[in-house]
Amino acid sequence: MLAEILTIGDELTRGEIVDTNSAWLAGRLWDLDVTVRWMTSCRDDEADLRAALAAACARVDLVLTSGGLGPTEDDLTCDVVAAAAGVPVAIDEGARARLEQFLSSRGRPVSEVNLRQARVPAGARVHASPVGLAPGFEVALGGVPVVCLPGVPRELHAIWEAGLAARVDELRRAHGAAPRIARRVYRLFGCGESQVSEALRGLVDDVAGASLHYQVKFPEVLVKLVVRDPDAAAAAERLAALDAGLAARVGAWTYGTGDEPLPLVVGRALLAGGHRVAVAESCTAGLVGALLTELPGASGYFVGGAIAYADDEKVRQLDVSPATLGAHGAVSEEVVREMARGARARTGAGIGIAVSGIAGPGGGTPAKPVGTVWLAVDGPGAGHRTFRMRWPGPRDQVRTLAAWWALELVRQAIGGARA
Amino acid sequence: MLAEILTIGDELTRGEIVDTNSAWLAGRLWDLDVTVRWMTSCRDDEADLRAALAAACARVDLVLTSGGLGPTEDDLTCDVVAAAAGVPVAIDEGARARLEQFLSSRGRPVSEVNLRQARVPAGARVHASPVGLAPGFEVALGGVPVVCLPGVPRELHAIWEAGLAARVDELRRAHGAAPRIARRVYRLFGCGESQVSEALRGLVDDVAGASLHYQVKFPEVLVKLVVRDPDAAAAAERLAALDAGLAARVGAWTYGTGDEPLPLVVGRALLAGGHRVAVAESCTAGLVGALLTELPGASGYFVGGAIAYADDEKVRQLDVSPATLGAHGAVSEEVVREMARGARARTGAGIGIAVSGIAGPGGGTPAKPVGTVWLAVDGPGAGHRTFRMRWPGPRDQVRTLAAWWALELVRQAIGGARA
Repeated sequence: MLAEILTIGDELTRGEIVDTNSAWLAGRLWDLDVTVRWMTSCRDDEADLRAALAAACARVDLVLTSGGLGPTEDDLTCDVVAAAAGVPVAIDEGARARLEQFLSSRGRPVSEVNLRQARVPAGARVHASPVGLAPGFEVALGGVPVVCLPGVPRELHAIWEAGLAARVDELRRAHGAAPRIARRVYRLFGCGESQVSEALRGLVDDVAGASLHYQVKFPEVLVKLVVRDPDAAAAAERLAALDAGLAARVGAWTYGTGDEPLPLVVGRALLAGGHRVAVAESCTAGLVGALLTELPGASGYFVGGAIAYADDEKVRQLDVSPATLGAHGAVSEEVVREMARGARARTGAGIGIAVSGIAGPGGGTPAKPVGTVWLAVDGPGAGHRTFRMRWPGPRDQVRTLAAWWALELVRQAIGGARA
Repeated sequence: MLAEILTIGDELTRGEIVDTNSAWLAGRLWDLDVTVRWMTSCRDDEADLRAALAAACARVDLVLTSGGLGPTEDDLTCDVVAAAAGVPVAIDEGARARLEQFLSSRGRPVSEVNLRQARVPAGARVHASPVGLAPGFEVALGGVPVVCLPGVPRELHAIWEAGLAARVDELRRAHGAAPRIARRVYRLFGCGESQVSEALRGLVDDVAGASLHYQVKFPEVLVKLVVRDPDAAAAAERLAALDAGLAARVGAWTYGTGDEPLPLVVGRALLAGGHRVAVAESCTAGLVGALLTELPGASGYFVGGAIAYADDEKVRQLDVSPATLGAHGAVSEEVVREMARGARARTGAGIGIAVSGIAGPGGGTPAKPVGTVWLAVDGPGAGHRTFRMRWPGPRDQVRTLAAWWALELVRQAIGGARA
């Protein structure tokens, strides 16, 4: 079953707001095995909206729209859809009752402008809103179900959850049997998309219904493995077999599967292992600490630490030796090693993490070009590890990547095998 | 001049990522007086992409695409566009050179997969990427300019800034005379969109060609004031008159105009004033330090400071009195005042900034609900100021907002009048 999502409004086409409804709906439809083929946005323009609806109904089996159901003159969706369906506009009595209740609770009468939000095409299936005033509605245009939803994300989500999801599932079943989908998302760090696709080349070639999909989400790469089969168990079985092959090829870059990015994965591992961590940050200036505390309950493993941007602070806060600084410079293996040790010793944490680098755009030298970052992890136990990163990118990327490498070194240090 | 933006990729139509490129480009085109009529997203599907290009070229004067220029097999844009233009695919030598340089600096050879990113339709106008590997390119399909850009937002932005904006402006002029536009973007912090729109209600009603546009970019609100007139000087004059009225109404929330968000504005002000700053962070855990160092050359004003997540660290690193902690709790005016003083005294910086709050989702109490954050700025001079924020939102929003409030307090402390 193919679908199109049509979002309506000048605020979209002028770039004033980012359309999050399309992705939200697309993700839900994908989970119901409905494939979104097109996503379209158009202005608050009657002719364009009419054209968009006609084009959509000609090329997919289900159309969802969002926007243009508000009370103002430029909200055209109801009128255009009703005209396309050849029916008049009517007031939905349920929506009118909600409106009257809402306004009377504020001591206000129902005006004609208010009432515009209760309008639906006559005879439409109404999808009442549990949280807003404008209901969603559904009509068939040329045999294709068209579901119109308000543009406010919170209202759209609530209508979906309250009953539209079930309705779409019903429509999909009526449309015919669809293959069941088994899927898994692998999260990789420390590699580029091209390295990953090279490593995985041919993996799914001879496996029926299997496909690989890549997504770069700097600084990580996501790989989605999908297997389709009329039989859910068969799809799951082939997925499990491919899972092993995938691990063999890119396991060294894979830090996890599923929804959680590295900061949350590392936070959970620290919490589970009963570790306590402190940071010593120079070029990242707090970014490692900020990432390490994204997980609620971070106080269970995160102590704090030093932002030692100036060299004096490295000495004062972390007991870095001025001699080491003088001999090797602030961006060196020797200095980050002392920083990590200092963070650990000063705070009493079992693990100290240090970062010092040249984020740029200035400050690079031939020996230490912009993008050179040294990292060190001291502990747990007596062990320590260091790592030199080189990334000739812009300042924000160097810093983000350095902070992620710090987390990755921690993950490795506490025994997080690459998945 | 009418435009269409076409974004390409299964990750969009499956709802795996929110398409921010369309809104970003639409905003830029709008600034150049190019009206986006349609925004379309399609899958990595050859036939659909071909159909989308044909439909776009039939209904607008300019097409911008994003996505499908990566190194993998499902990146089809170059092939489909070249076929539509009736030309073969060629390697762009500039992009090849960049690629070779990039990979050799990492000690890696150029593979065939890598090289796919250097492909363009033969004879296309190349829009080189200042930051990425895949260049953008432009061909004419049926007389309509089609500009293809990589899907990675950072690369797309860089190509736009480096030369594409000027090229689109050139195309627009060639397309015919358009009214001149005078515009100014005001950046507001500490207020909601509805408060701003209420405060500005009626401001432009009687001014010919003038309009106001809002954009919420959490945690700030952007207000765009636009005046259109065939005569550029007349447009500028009316804009200047409106500027004063706008300042009178929302000046108290306005921290700047133009492209730079608060972290850069504050960084420049600190640098210009010869200030030196240190931080003392609890719930933000480094976020204030990270924001303060976004500006290149931050070492000119940023010293470092303490991440004091655990209460013990507030005592150890910042000399917060255990008695104060016991009497008022870590999230209190008294404690942040001592934290800011401690950061200043310990580092010798002229300004100390402190943040302590309940980011949630747990840890709230009736007296101090989740989203309660205390901030303090000590200095410059003998003065200090404190501020209590309350924001009953999700953890990441509470932390981001708290860090921005810290910057805003610094801005006020060093005499940054609201614009």
